Amino acid sequence: MHPFIQKILENTQRLGHHICLGLDPDINKLPHHYERSLKGVSYFLYDVIEATKEHVIAFKPNMAFFEVFGVEGIQLLKDIRQKIPEKIPVILDAKRADIGNTSEKIAHYLIRYFNADAITLHPYMGFDSLSPFFNYAECFHFVLGLTSNPGAKDFEYLELSNKNKLYQSVLSKCNEWHKTYKNIGVVMGATQNIDWARQKYPELLFLVPGVGHQGGNYQESVENSKNSQQLTIINITRELLYASEEKKYLEILIKKLNSYKDIKK
Amino acid sequence: MHPFIQKILENTQRLGHHICLGLDPDINKLPHHYERSLKGVSYFLYDVIEATKEHVIAFKPNMAFFEVFGVEGIQLLKDIRQKIPEKIPVILDAKRADIGNTSEKIAHYLIRYFNADAITLHPYMGFDSLSPFFNYAECFHFVLGLTSNPGAKDFEYLELSNKNKLYQSVLSKCNEWHKTYKNIGVVMGATQNIDWARQKYPELLFLVPGVGHQGGNYQESVENSKNSQQLTIINITRELLYASEEKKYLEILIKKLNSYKDIKK
Repeated sequence: MHPFIQKILENTQRLGHHICLGLDPDINKLPHHYERSLKGVSYFLYDVIEATKEHVIAFKPNMAFFEVFGVEGIQLLKDIRQKIPEKIPVILDAKRADIGNTSEKIAHYLIRYFNADAITLHPYMGFDSLSPFFNYAECFHFVLGLTSNPGAKDFEYLELSNKNKLYQSVLSKCNEWHKTYKNIGVVMGATQNIDWARQKYPELLFLVPGVGHQGGNYQESVENSKNSQQLTIINITRELLYASEEKKYLEILIKKLNSYKDIKK
Repeated sequence: MHPFIQKILENTQRLGHHICLGLDPDINKLPHHYERSLKGVSYFLYDVIEATKEHVIAFKPNMAFFEVFGVEGIQLLKDIRQKIPEKIPVILDAKRADIGNTSEKIAHYLIRYFNADAITLHPYMGFDSLSPFFNYAECFHFVLGLTSNPGAKDFEYLELSNKNKLYQSVLSKCNEWHKTYKNIGVVMGATQNIDWARQKYPELLFLVPGVGHQGGNYQESVENSKNSQQLTIINITRELLYASEEKKYLEILIKKLNSYKDIKK
């Protein structure tokens, strides 16, 4: 079993939910008792990771929310990554891909420099833009399939001459590549109808954003997105990370997280 | 006229060629007299920029070649950016796009933090993943259209139910968006047949990679890719940046660059 899948399986069984916590720090949404500065952001993230690391199946930092602070923000991402225990995988949400020799460099940055357990990729440029990432066997790769934003209709939903939609063709390729590489999944937005994808490719692992603030329902998303191993990764960011601005924020956050266990029963 | 186009126009007229120099530092390809370290890379880039800044229409650093060195590499990108005179636009090749609130963060990083004159974007997620970038009116945006790598056949060349290829649909949307935003062009690989695109959208500005090492011919690429303003941006990286490993590398580089002027006549 792939080491990333192994960790997701163990954490899911231990916790009784499928929640990955998005780590997208926003200086304007910090609870009131954190300083509105990069220093405040770092204390906030250290506190969140310390409080939740036994309560989530994975963490998903989105690089952009660190890059916006420049090199100091990127250094912070590297620093907080060290605070995450090995059993909790880090999905580094970077949404990248380029021609092969460039993708090699990006892969080194994401997978070696940040020690990501999994990353996200843009499919547009095709196989040789992605294979330099797939070649890192120990890393898992979520290729964008069907996203939950309105713009999904512009290209992802375009009908091909074989009557499939573009995103269906992307899934088909990912499924094929996964058979060779054993380390590929897809991003499938919670607000989309994913039944077709789930039935057609029962083994593919889905990373499901869009639950909570973006409109998706947790329980429905779990039922619709679980693969043949009963695994799915439901990413929630805003509803949890900004659960409250009060002093007892961490308490409220944990309470919210635990409430998802009850939904399961 | 958009400030980026204004600069490209002036530089093209002054120099008599269309060459943008790719700045993708590779520690293993430095001329022999530079130390094989990040310090060596920085001296190399300072020397290249100083020697070529009056001889190219633009510079195109690819972020991945700096990110591979970690935060110190990213700081170097910020430092070398300061050395480039205002009249020579910087196309920051980052190939990004995410959901709207995330794209906002990336835009700030690329356009404000690095002060990019132009950037590159992945189209897959559609309009609302791109518009936060387009909203930076002073920046110019090259959306991936048809790339010169083999993987272009996986998705970009897929035939749609309306008989167009996917990349043609991307170009059509870019052309439409450009009418509103006035700051959008497309990436069109030199090794591809781009006549269709040139004839259908005569005003769209193309950024053309793939000349030199990747197999495209300069003169043909210029003729095939010039828009109605007689503008095109031909990016060359390896053939120029690694023109020689000898001590008189800079001399050879400038000679090669100037040889493109003669082709034009």
